[in-house]
Amino acid sequence: MAVLLVGALALAQGLTPEQMEQGKQIYFQQCAGCHGVLRKGATGKNLEPETLKKEGLTEDAIKAIITNGMGGMPAWGKLGILKPDEIDLMAKFLLSPVPEPPAWTFEDIKKNWKVHVPVSQRPTKPETTRNWQNFFGVILRDMGQVAIVDGDTKELVKILPTGYATHILRSSKDGRYFYVIGRDGRAEIIDLWSKEPTLVAEAKVCLDARSIDTSKYEGYEGKYAVVGCYWPSNFVILDGQTLEPIKMVSTQGYVQSTGEFLRENRVASIVSSHFSPEWILNIKEGGQTWLVDYSKLNLKGKPIVVKMIDTDRFLHDGGWDLSKRYFLVAANAVKKVDVIDAKTGSFVASIPVGNKPHPGRGANWVHPEYGPVWATGHIKDNKIAVIGTDPEGHPQYAWKVVKMIETMSPGNLFIKTHPKSPWLIADFPVAPTPEANATLCAWEKDNLEKDPVCWEVPGARDIHARMVHIEFNKDGSEFWVSAWANKDTPSFIVVYDSYTLQEKTRITGDWVRTPTGHFNVYNTANDIY
Amino acid sequence: MAVLLVGALALAQGLTPEQMEQGKQIYFQQCAGCHGVLRKGATGKNLEPETLKKEGLTEDAIKAIITNGMGGMPAWGKLGILKPDEIDLMAKFLLSPVPEPPAWTFEDIKKNWKVHVPVSQRPTKPETTRNWQNFFGVILRDMGQVAIVDGDTKELVKILPTGYATHILRSSKDGRYFYVIGRDGRAEIIDLWSKEPTLVAEAKVCLDARSIDTSKYEGYEGKYAVVGCYWPSNFVILDGQTLEPIKMVSTQGYVQSTGEFLRENRVASIVSSHFSPEWILNIKEGGQTWLVDYSKLNLKGKPIVVKMIDTDRFLHDGGWDLSKRYFLVAANAVKKVDVIDAKTGSFVASIPVGNKPHPGRGANWVHPEYGPVWATGHIKDNKIAVIGTDPEGHPQYAWKVVKMIETMSPGNLFIKTHPKSPWLIADFPVAPTPEANATLCAWEKDNLEKDPVCWEVPGARDIHARMVHIEFNKDGSEFWVSAWANKDTPSFIVVYDSYTLQEKTRITGDWVRTPTGHFNVYNTANDIY
Repeated sequence: MAVLLVGALALAQGLTPEQMEQGKQIYFQQCAGCHGVLRKGATGKNLEPETLKKEGLTEDAIKAIITNGMGGMPAWGKLGILKPDEIDLMAKFLLSPVPEPPAWTFEDIKKNWKVHVPVSQRPTKPETTRNWQNFFGVILRDMGQVAIVDGDTKELVKILPTGYATHILRSSKDGRYFYVIGRDGRAEIIDLWSKEPTLVAEAKVCLDARSIDTSKYEGYEGKYAVVGCYWPSNFVILDGQTLEPIKMVSTQGYVQSTGEFLRENRVASIVSSHFSPEWILNIKEGGQTWLVDYSKLNLKGKPIVVKMIDTDRFLHDGGWDLSKRYFLVAANAVKKVDVIDAKTGSFVASIPVGNKPHPGRGANWVHPEYGPVWATGHIKDNKIAVIGTDPEGHPQYAWKVVKMIETMSPGNLFIKTHPKSPWLIADFPVAPTPEANATLCAWEKDNLEKDPVCWEVPGARDIHARMVHIEFNKDGSEFWVSAWANKDTPSFIVVYDSYTLQEKTRITGDWVRTPTGHFNVYNTANDIY
Repeated sequence: MAVLLVGALALAQGLTPEQMEQGKQIYFQQCAGCHGVLRKGATGKNLEPETLKKEGLTEDAIKAIITNGMGGMPAWGKLGILKPDEIDLMAKFLLSPVPEPPAWTFEDIKKNWKVHVPVSQRPTKPETTRNWQNFFGVILRDMGQVAIVDGDTKELVKILPTGYATHILRSSKDGRYFYVIGRDGRAEIIDLWSKEPTLVAEAKVCLDARSIDTSKYEGYEGKYAVVGCYWPSNFVILDGQTLEPIKMVSTQGYVQSTGEFLRENRVASIVSSHFSPEWILNIKEGGQTWLVDYSKLNLKGKPIVVKMIDTDRFLHDGGWDLSKRYFLVAANAVKKVDVIDAKTGSFVASIPVGNKPHPGRGANWVHPEYGPVWATGHIKDNKIAVIGTDPEGHPQYAWKVVKMIETMSPGNLFIKTHPKSPWLIADFPVAPTPEANATLCAWEKDNLEKDPVCWEVPGARDIHARMVHIEFNKDGSEFWVSAWANKDTPSFIVVYDSYTLQEKTRITGDWVRTPTGHFNVYNTANDIY
């Protein structure tokens, strides 16, 4: 009935059912991440038709904004991502009633779950002769692929088909498995111990997801996986070896500060505690961190225990401090970094930072004066916030911004360092200029007053690439950065020397298309960042 | 927009906006309890217009069912509760699209919260000279009142205005306060220590509620209250002294067995654990019991901890076993009683019983052969199920129906006993005949083989009353039963001798209208049933 009604009203906007369907697809791919499936807004603004009309946004005005961008919104037209007829369609679509997003039940997950290689048929020790702990899993975003690259030889080991727009990879505690999660809610396990990397299991867990992790506490290593979903807003616990669904828990709920009810209360980042059999799930719109205890899942009659901690709203991504006790997470729309203590299960601090912090997992090092610190860059500020993280050894700096580093541009997505490197490296993939997109900067970790070394990556601008995501190899001697270009253009990954910042080599080939995140097995498994 | 659409379609069914509003009111009062606000069904069937049409239920067929009843559904027409024009309206209403139920936010609760007597102005010791521990709080259901009656003298002490259709009263651990919850989601606190009973605080917690309790664990007595809501489906934690809202947690979520998502996942009964600072909340449609830890609510940065235990679906009402360790709760639509161990926080058993068990809080006693037992009657079966509850002393009987007692009729709502009474008493207020409605039965607790003593209450049928709810006085020497008649008719409460079953007296007066539940302070505070 609701579908018919929405259909009828969409027709009133001049959209055929086919156009409505196309609008839904485009909206889901380009808009929903920031504005929400229900268009109620999150990082982006509210886009409900009533709101747009109240704001006086006509079809023409909307077309102009989609074409040219506005504030933090990309210029979808100018960037060539949406064509003029698609922009026409989207303006009409946005003025039509919000279609009800589809459901995805536990039964749906079960039906869309496949074990390609049963656990009994998997190797019990590594069968590859390569140094698999130094493999990199490279996301080929728009190809729906993950490439496994040998970090020692830089050879392509294997390309594996994955879901659409893979968001991240996470490693099992022993590093053997890569867990993949895509924006289409498809999760996969890649086994790196096979003769060649093999997709051993997959499950379509939801319709939109951003995070995955596994049980890492002693005695539970690899027993369970958990996927954090955007739509439906929930988390799903799966068998860690087969991805068989075990438990689905809704996160729909209330905004902590106002009590407004949210159907879209999405699970952003997830980490696995080292202090207890718990996952730390960040519930975005509502403003809570949930500690989910997985230790009783296999005990009949026992509960799943969820500890709900109030935080700032709009939690997004984050990472551990150096001690792996404190989890620092960006509350991006309110310009804060929140700190959760995994040991005591409590909220520790809300730290004001710059505009739209985006740490990825952040960067950790020991500063000569401030002691252990963690840092985040920002999407909408030309700043890197360095935060003291050692309340015992350096209480005067703990949970304060000890240094706000000026950068050459906003538009940073990732910063990274490694205990073996003297440098803190930053990218600028969402900066407003192609020059900045192609540029990387490095600061001396021990001397933050000193001007950074910045360089434009040769060849990047030629293919309209944005340099994105910094990841070190196992021994920390080099770091890799992806040149994220268009799907039609073969691109490259640059390998730099960790000490000299000199380019050592490039990973190229026809297969290198839309590379984005690239995760080193050892560093990912051991939370080294 | 959605409202406009529903309005437009309702018009298509021939309903004016005023009629639609009237339909919503009648539906909410008479239908929603069993069929759900969203009409998706629970104890009653699904009533969505698509379903009714698919089942071939025309407007005339629906009118006939509302008039004459069907299965467990009352004959609303024949009983004179709905008039013919209201039945016409309801048939049209049910074939119209389901209107979106209103929201109720934390801000709404705050705005509708009032402290009539601040804590500092309340007495620090009883100022009444009456034996307040033997007060009865009598619900005058359709009057929107609670009467406080002196259990010693049988005098009316005070009538207090409460919300619409008060569902239950619960006592604070010390018995001083009655906590009231009505079907309109209004909660009140009545102070029995004042010179005369006084309404000291109230809050409109939600739009439909059924349960309330307070923190009873040592050190937390009376610190918090919790209300379980039907709509919106959630629970709300309030200050135990003032009802100031503290925390609202949604229970919308998944059916545990199928993964279907439920907006209407209602909180049925609540009890307060004696083993830990936890409440036990029964989540009806989804099939879970939630243990909610209230011990960290006052600690900054600390979580609210929810332990989610899978159970049968359609949990409704229930009570403690004699040891107050095990909570027994009816899963009424699936003919089960589930057992939760409050000490270990786990699901213990699912016990098949009769059709639609309705224990209220049940009845506990020590049987000479079976040891400690707990019993429930049934709405749709002429049976009382007696269940063994002593896994240590009588393991062979534990969590089994040790005796299924035949009763003279289905339609039982409450059974009750007291350690000082040799009798197990049952009412039949929802039985199909006026004779049964006016009748009470009593079994010898120690000799369940023996035929019961049954008697029709003189005068009950004359006023079309249904005898309902049995409650003992403080010393267990007598029990009270309400004659639940029409609002226009003064009615009575009969007081019986606990040993001889002889009528001792009647509580009458113009004020005794629609009396239903009547709660003794001492027995309610101490969970004696």
